[in-house]
Amino acid sequence: MKDGIVYIYSDKAAAGRNEPKDLPYPSLEHFVDDMNFLLALIAQGPVKTYSHRRLKFLSYKFQVHEMLNEMEEIKELKNNPHRDFYNCRKVDTHIHAAACMNQKHLLRFIKKSYRVDADRVVYDAKGEKLTLKQLFQKLNLHPYDLTVDSLDVHAGRQTFQRFDKFNAKYNPVGASELRDLYLKTENTINGEYFATIIKEVGSDLEDAKYQHAEPRLSIYGRSAEEWAKLANWFNRHRVYSPNMKWMIQVPRIYDVFRSRNFLPHFGKMLENIFVPVFEATVNPQAHKELSVFLRHITGFDSVDDESKHSGHMFSTKSPKPEQWTSAKNPSYTYYVYYMYANILVLNNLRRQRGMNTFLFRPHCGEAGAITHLLAAFMTADNISHGLNLKKSPVLQYLYFLAQIPIAMSPLSNNSLFLEYAKNPLLDFHQKGLMVSLSTDDPMQFHYTKEPLMEEYAIAAQVFKLSTCDMCEIARNSVLQCGLSHEEKAKFLGENYQEEGPHGNDVRKTNVAQIRMAYRYETWCYELNLIAEGLKAE
Amino acid sequence: MKDGIVYIYSDKAAAGRNEPKDLPYPSLEHFVDDMNFLLALIAQGPVKTYSHRRLKFLSYKFQVHEMLNEMEEIKELKNNPHRDFYNCRKVDTHIHAAACMNQKHLLRFIKKSYRVDADRVVYDAKGEKLTLKQLFQKLNLHPYDLTVDSLDVHAGRQTFQRFDKFNAKYNPVGASELRDLYLKTENTINGEYFATIIKEVGSDLEDAKYQHAEPRLSIYGRSAEEWAKLANWFNRHRVYSPNMKWMIQVPRIYDVFRSRNFLPHFGKMLENIFVPVFEATVNPQAHKELSVFLRHITGFDSVDDESKHSGHMFSTKSPKPEQWTSAKNPSYTYYVYYMYANILVLNNLRRQRGMNTFLFRPHCGEAGAITHLLAAFMTADNISHGLNLKKSPVLQYLYFLAQIPIAMSPLSNNSLFLEYAKNPLLDFHQKGLMVSLSTDDPMQFHYTKEPLMEEYAIAAQVFKLSTCDMCEIARNSVLQCGLSHEEKAKFLGENYQEEGPHGNDVRKTNVAQIRMAYRYETWCYELNLIAEGLKAE
Repeated sequence: MKDGIVYIYSDKAAAGRNEPKDLPYPSLEHFVDDMNFLLALIAQGPVKTYSHRRLKFLSYKFQVHEMLNEMEEIKELKNNPHRDFYNCRKVDTHIHAAACMNQKHLLRFIKKSYRVDADRVVYDAKGEKLTLKQLFQKLNLHPYDLTVDSLDVHAGRQTFQRFDKFNAKYNPVGASELRDLYLKTENTINGEYFATIIKEVGSDLEDAKYQHAEPRLSIYGRSAEEWAKLANWFNRHRVYSPNMKWMIQVPRIYDVFRSRNFLPHFGKMLENIFVPVFEATVNPQAHKELSVFLRHITGFDSVDDESKHSGHMFSTKSPKPEQWTSAKNPSYTYYVYYMYANILVLNNLRRQRGMNTFLFRPHCGEAGAITHLLAAFMTADNISHGLNLKKSPVLQYLYFLAQIPIAMSPLSNNSLFLEYAKNPLLDFHQKGLMVSLSTDDPMQFHYTKEPLMEEYAIAAQVFKLSTCDMCEIARNSVLQCGLSHEEKAKFLGENYQEEGPHGNDVRKTNVAQIRMAYRYETWCYELNLIAEGLKAE
Repeated sequence: MKDGIVYIYSDKAAAGRNEPKDLPYPSLEHFVDDMNFLLALIAQGPVKTYSHRRLKFLSYKFQVHEMLNEMEEIKELKNNPHRDFYNCRKVDTHIHAAACMNQKHLLRFIKKSYRVDADRVVYDAKGEKLTLKQLFQKLNLHPYDLTVDSLDVHAGRQTFQRFDKFNAKYNPVGASELRDLYLKTENTINGEYFATIIKEVGSDLEDAKYQHAEPRLSIYGRSAEEWAKLANWFNRHRVYSPNMKWMIQVPRIYDVFRSRNFLPHFGKMLENIFVPVFEATVNPQAHKELSVFLRHITGFDSVDDESKHSGHMFSTKSPKPEQWTSAKNPSYTYYVYYMYANILVLNNLRRQRGMNTFLFRPHCGEAGAITHLLAAFMTADNISHGLNLKKSPVLQYLYFLAQIPIAMSPLSNNSLFLEYAKNPLLDFHQKGLMVSLSTDDPMQFHYTKEPLMEEYAIAAQVFKLSTCDMCEIARNSVLQCGLSHEEKAKFLGENYQEEGPHGNDVRKTNVAQIRMAYRYETWCYELNLIAEGLKAE
């Protein structure tokens, strides 16, 4: 690794001559140049006015379309045999593994584990081995008395604008011991409980048949062993479900590790995150478990509280990762660039070797500065949240033009950053941005046994979505997720990669062709306007 | 029956002497006097100002209470062992039997019936016997192709402010034949399918354990045989679930029957509705099926589109029911008075005979004139909807003072009369009106398998209700429903009939005593203010 980017050499001699393989990625200078161009663009008055007016036009145009064609869309769907909202595929495009069960499920699991495993050694408190019974005694609890209230994992009014309080909700009964035992992959019982809970969620999805989920597991970058341990957990417990695709989330908490002296510099964190994956890619035989695990991974996510301000402005003069030794956290953009660049190199390498590649799907625009959305625009395959596109007409218009998918979670936002009725989901959907619905954290936000259906139902009720709207959102979720080409072709129709109505198989998606034609024409019209404008110059 | 009220005579001789038994009810004059007094009261400027200010005060006071005591309430509930929102009892206080299943359930049932019963004669089209297969052929349908979309029973944007369109949604695939076959008690198969669906809903409730429902069945008053037929259906199919209590709904559609000459006058309609019940009460042996059925009935509901204006003003000069021969529909108040008076007489008679009595729980204030709410205030045990209390501060304050329960259905309102965010549920709850949550018509409004939980979940999310709020609403639902005294004592605690914290058993209800004390003190304070005011006069 050099300057935060992994380089691959064909052999040791080549390394001595400093001739890395040709695995292209955008250089820092190139990235910063583009970034500065975009920064100037989104601040330019006329561009703002133009974007604002085009977006407004898109919004009115959709409403005119609906007034004129709503009944026709409904008629088309009524005549579409054997397919309705319930049996069209939907993917929970943004969900964290550690909160993928609902609160009642977790509670039931804790009670069950106590009935079965009370005398099992499950916890190691600084050398002292504790059985499940002893652990609960130490916490002054009896599982029989536990309720959803005392479990206290649900977000409430207290968490609004308080990401810190929200993070604390990951601790059942406020006890980090229980989080370690039930919601972690590394512990005395090798993450067995956590694996079992996730498999139960997976089997619920299989029963529901038409629902999929993409849970995120964490790689922190604190040590180089994390990957091996996580892969071991995954393989040991066979944490697998045909209705689940896996993602890796990297929390942006270098500052925490640095201040405790776990890491010498930011470069080391990147090394811990990426080098093991490169090694398993170059030499799968030597890293069997990890290379099996990697086959199930479909992408990387970057996560943390975006409202924390870093104070750092990314530029070519920023310290290189190996020089970033201060305890200050790098900016969102800095994180995103180095993750993106390494993923790109990695994907090029894996593609050469016929292996699966990874998408980059960071959390972005949930809160914080508008620059996050700009960095993700340049790098991300799709993003989670995107709320702050509300605040920048230029970026919003760019996301529309580029059709960058956005996995939105209005129930999560409602508890953390934005009241439900003010959520831009409906507005974005009407304008034609490519939005999907996702749950984020069922444990903290949802009440029913089917969190994804709850998410859709509430959106349908509050925003008065039609069946066509809901099926379009469901289709978007399949398009933007990490399912394989074969699966997507099966769920959406063979031509799903083509634009417009031709790419839509209404028998599978239940999205009216009238709607698809409207979307395609509208999008082409906007692109054409810009093309014409460029010619005229 | 005389002047629209049933009189009971001890024997034929007494009838000859015109000496009915003493079963008191409020006379028409008395009712109209009170009504006119209230009409004047709610229009009086100073009373309006006073009520408005008191209500505003109640609202602010609650918010102050929450700011100060929210954490304490949460703490109390966390320390309450073994009870949380999921396992406290909740009753769906307002649901129509003909729409008590969700759309997916109905669809699945239709498909299943076709697989099993295709060759069974199920329909009689003017003498022509049709098998299920022939019926679907006649409708040009194949059940295999049916979807939730083509079933088309869900309310959408098209039904807003259109009760007529909403009523048409009761016809699956727009075909009244299917409504007759699947959602009616009287048809060629004696309502077998309808009974089976309802029993499935009942068994889902039993599985959920903590949920109850009070479905409404219709008595139209078109003929005197309706009761016997309905009782026969109920007994024949053993339509029974420990988690269901039954209600009778009477649609206010005299005008429809009169214009088709089914009835000579309004008195006949009342006779058809009430005389069979009186007969079964006086002589249960001669009406065995009906008297068994009546034991399962807990109350009467009055239903129809309230936004239809009747043009009639109820007064002592209004024609008596026997004289009401015109095809015009009587006013809401007229209906309510005569139902109420007859139920009162009936209850007095049944009480004398040690039989169960009936509550009067009309639909009221969903739309239409404010006088509806006034009539119900004088007569009803509790009401469904109550939205229009928004418009009259005096009535709203009176409903608060009298603690008249209101079964609200914000999802139903959202599709028909009022957008979700504008629903007064939260406002009423904060002020201390006694509100519960109910689904109205899961078939038309809900998406998930647990409609009542969906209703609570959406209210919790949109209005940011705390656990204590939700459990208080659930407790209200048990208090106002038709469950027996023994059941209520079991679900709410032995002292449930007492006011204030003493009547609350937090171990059963999960409502914080802090909340109960606040409610009780606040209520007493308001009552006291009025008592003091009266003294000062």
